[in-house]
Amino acid sequence: MTDRSTATRPDLLPEPTLRRLPWYLAYLSTLRNAAIEYISTTRIAEALDVDPSQIAKDLSFLGIRGKTRIGYQVGALESALRDYLGFDKRHNAIMMGAGSLGGALISDNGLQRYGLNVVAGIDLNPTLIGTTINGVRIFSPSDTERLVRELDVKIGIIAVPVDSAQDVADTLAGAGVQAIWNFTPSRIRVREGMVIANTSIYSHLAVMYNRLQSLNKENKK
Amino acid sequence: MTDRSTATRPDLLPEPTLRRLPWYLAYLSTLRNAAIEYISTTRIAEALDVDPSQIAKDLSFLGIRGKTRIGYQVGALESALRDYLGFDKRHNAIMMGAGSLGGALISDNGLQRYGLNVVAGIDLNPTLIGTTINGVRIFSPSDTERLVRELDVKIGIIAVPVDSAQDVADTLAGAGVQAIWNFTPSRIRVREGMVIANTSIYSHLAVMYNRLQSLNKENKK
Repeated sequence: MTDRSTATRPDLLPEPTLRRLPWYLAYLSTLRNAAIEYISTTRIAEALDVDPSQIAKDLSFLGIRGKTRIGYQVGALESALRDYLGFDKRHNAIMMGAGSLGGALISDNGLQRYGLNVVAGIDLNPTLIGTTINGVRIFSPSDTERLVRELDVKIGIIAVPVDSAQDVADTLAGAGVQAIWNFTPSRIRVREGMVIANTSIYSHLAVMYNRLQSLNKENKK
Repeated sequence: MTDRSTATRPDLLPEPTLRRLPWYLAYLSTLRNAAIEYISTTRIAEALDVDPSQIAKDLSFLGIRGKTRIGYQVGALESALRDYLGFDKRHNAIMMGAGSLGGALISDNGLQRYGLNVVAGIDLNPTLIGTTINGVRIFSPSDTERLVRELDVKIGIIAVPVDSAQDVADTLAGAGVQAIWNFTPSRIRVREGMVIANTSIYSHLAVMYNRLQSLNKENKK
């Protein structure tokens, strides 16, 4: 994920911290399910293979400090993290492309549990327009601007073919969304001040295949 | 994505290079669709905002060099990249968890186009077991080891609840998969020599929300 547009603002949490906070959250939910009430930095550090001082520093951004010897109260820390990370708010989003990947993302209720509220989908395919996927209605591209305005959409998710990714990003920017979540392997350019997040699922495959190939060469030696 | 297990092997491509190669590939497919035959490093550099010397270096890993003044032949470079990245091979995978996210990933035909062949799904839910999603049959957890062996599965994809992620990873490792693709926000530990790729979709949301929040504070000033 690249996030260059915001690098100069001092009020932003460092991206590495923001990526570790969900690990802590995931671990805390495991502890809560196991009815564990308190947890120390040391234990979190061991479980997640992160330096204890790093964890203390990350959590201090939230204004949370553990108690000496006792550590953090699991439930309270979990709530504080969810709240801080914005997972308890609703963030309205529009899904650009409701085909294979877009449709799959709309079907994933997990996104909703993390605060992402997909209010509409957009697709060129006339057989999709007018249908609903997981309760989300699919519209024609010409409806994009109106829907963004009417439904107070802040986030545009791009799951269209690579060829159209930049055009779709431009349409979203013109319609007034503030953030773009790009699921295509395309490098999208946005204007200064817009937020862009890239989740290139397929490029992770490339890394994995290369590691696998090298592993199998190694084993044959 | 973290990839610590393989950091010491010299025959591996650097991860940043492996993550840029799919950008080039995506851009090349756009060019091919626009019937453009040759492309220079400079043009690729401009389009993708990557340093030209970096591109030449990345492509030299593949043993590909552009011709002076003419550059690279689009179709040939695209094929070479697809082949090198392993997108044209079939990599057998098993989907652990066929609920919301797992089911969505099985439904995404895009993964297949990038060489990922999901041969079976596993789920605890008795109403899912025995059904098929996008042609992929869902089995009970007790079938995991047998399926991995019988169907020559190299990759295990983890899309189960956070609590079970480590257990599922251990089962996969025991069954003999070589790589784990972890879609949960959980930090999974694997034995030395196994490949692990982490795609934490939800942690990208955390970064995006934080940037959005800060943007809106900025605008109110």
